[in-house]
Amino acid sequence: MIAVDFESWCRAQLDTVESALSAWVPLQAPAGLGQAMRYGVLDGGKRLRPLLVLAAAEAVNGSDGEAALRAACAVELIHAYSLIHDDMPCMDNDVLRRGKPTVHVQFGEAQAMLAGDAMQALAFEVLTPEQGVPAVLQARLCALLARSAGHAGMAGGQAIDLASIGVTLDEQSLRDMHHRKTGALLQGSVLMGAACGQASPAAWLALADYGDAIGLAFQVVDDILDVTQASETLGKTAGKDQHANKPTYVSVLGLDAARQHARELREKALAALSRSHLPDVQRLTDLANKVVDRDC
Amino acid sequence: MIAVDFESWCRAQLDTVESALSAWVPLQAPAGLGQAMRYGVLDGGKRLRPLLVLAAAEAVNGSDGEAALRAACAVELIHAYSLIHDDMPCMDNDVLRRGKPTVHVQFGEAQAMLAGDAMQALAFEVLTPEQGVPAVLQARLCALLARSAGHAGMAGGQAIDLASIGVTLDEQSLRDMHHRKTGALLQGSVLMGAACGQASPAAWLALADYGDAIGLAFQVVDDILDVTQASETLGKTAGKDQHANKPTYVSVLGLDAARQHARELREKALAALSRSHLPDVQRLTDLANKVVDRDC
Repeated sequence: MIAVDFESWCRAQLDTVESALSAWVPLQAPAGLGQAMRYGVLDGGKRLRPLLVLAAAEAVNGSDGEAALRAACAVELIHAYSLIHDDMPCMDNDVLRRGKPTVHVQFGEAQAMLAGDAMQALAFEVLTPEQGVPAVLQARLCALLARSAGHAGMAGGQAIDLASIGVTLDEQSLRDMHHRKTGALLQGSVLMGAACGQASPAAWLALADYGDAIGLAFQVVDDILDVTQASETLGKTAGKDQHANKPTYVSVLGLDAARQHARELREKALAALSRSHLPDVQRLTDLANKVVDRDC
Repeated sequence: MIAVDFESWCRAQLDTVESALSAWVPLQAPAGLGQAMRYGVLDGGKRLRPLLVLAAAEAVNGSDGEAALRAACAVELIHAYSLIHDDMPCMDNDVLRRGKPTVHVQFGEAQAMLAGDAMQALAFEVLTPEQGVPAVLQARLCALLARSAGHAGMAGGQAIDLASIGVTLDEQSLRDMHHRKTGALLQGSVLMGAACGQASPAAWLALADYGDAIGLAFQVVDDILDVTQASETLGKTAGKDQHANKPTYVSVLGLDAARQHARELREKALAALSRSHLPDVQRLTDLANKVVDRDC
């Protein structure tokens, strides 16, 4: 299974995810809604969440069949809808995303809000096909996704984020915010992948720990990149958290300690993989390295 | 089962739904998100959708157990989130709903958007408990709800609604818009109830027709009330569709023909119930009458 190198594996997975998203995000949705949805999710993004789903599914021999691909696309739809809503004027008021005008700049605020709403529903539609995925697994995937995306996960984290503008947070509070805002869906991606195959209870817990560490590491690195890189490289407005007076790992820990923290989280993630006793966790190892090493 | 009269039945169901929603919509969600969610869904609304779920479940002997109650609460969460987003300044910009300030007026636009987003996720969380509802039924309910709420249903209808401001629609286009915008979730409510029990294929189709007719009837009556009633009675801003220059059944058909059309749709709904050959459709009959007769 590990015959191809990591970059080739990523490219192959991303092609498959892109084709599936293109097939499932409906061009024919009425009154321009389909165009706005497709603009918001196709042709862009690092697709880290789908890669985590697919790598975790491979690690538990669950990558055959449609379930893992559907789960990969569903988490990406949730992620993409959250970006659309997050960029809107009443939230972060951002005009640039993945190097392109944001959805509300391109299609108007009302259409952007509806596109996000429809993409959340579509995520659950993708998880519940008439055939191709056992009903028990459909229910499990819906349960994991709903909890990752909702008040206890991503949406709750965004509420804390909103309330924290201009507020001094200690590291624990910052960790709690990111645990929900970014971590929940990244961990959810790993667990949705794991649900597609056979994971022992011990492997499940280890993968949950892996997802947790990866989720925090991702946010720490994001905060570092926000201050060290230019907008052209990021494809989104750089320094925006700093300008919005939002607490970040860099503002709380300082740049050097933040970099050190990211490396420690990678070690935690790799230790969890080793605890899983799964025979082949190379893709998940590669993804942990990819998260931490992306240009910081 | 029909020992209690319709009004008593409604009150008992509504009490149960209100208690369940109050238990499931989390006060403890962070940073005020829980308060905004609860404000948006508790203590208000006619709860027509939950009543349709529960009446349909009763008609197919599916009202035992938790599934129907969970489905009833899930559709109400979707309905309530759609109202929160619909009321926002970038959509209908409405300040009054159910006699109270709208959620964005009370909590700010960002929190209102997040509350709606979290409520959509919560609907799917409510449908996928760890126990109490068979997994196969969980998957079926998620599938029905996602399709009713998404691009092919409610969200798609709202996109048409947005695009139709100031546009002259013929009756067919108006019907298509409402079919999605309001009809899909009302029909979805009936079918989610029907999924909780044993419906023959013929009964399923008949209930789908019933839900379709009820859905359109509801919108026709809504359009009539929008021009014939004062804001105080409606609990929301009256005449707003007229002022927003949106096409309505009244503007397209005229008031008398719209009233006649509502009565015809009731007849269609009742004819469908009779085709279902279900032994007891009294609650569904009562609900059809309630939809058409509400003060117009």
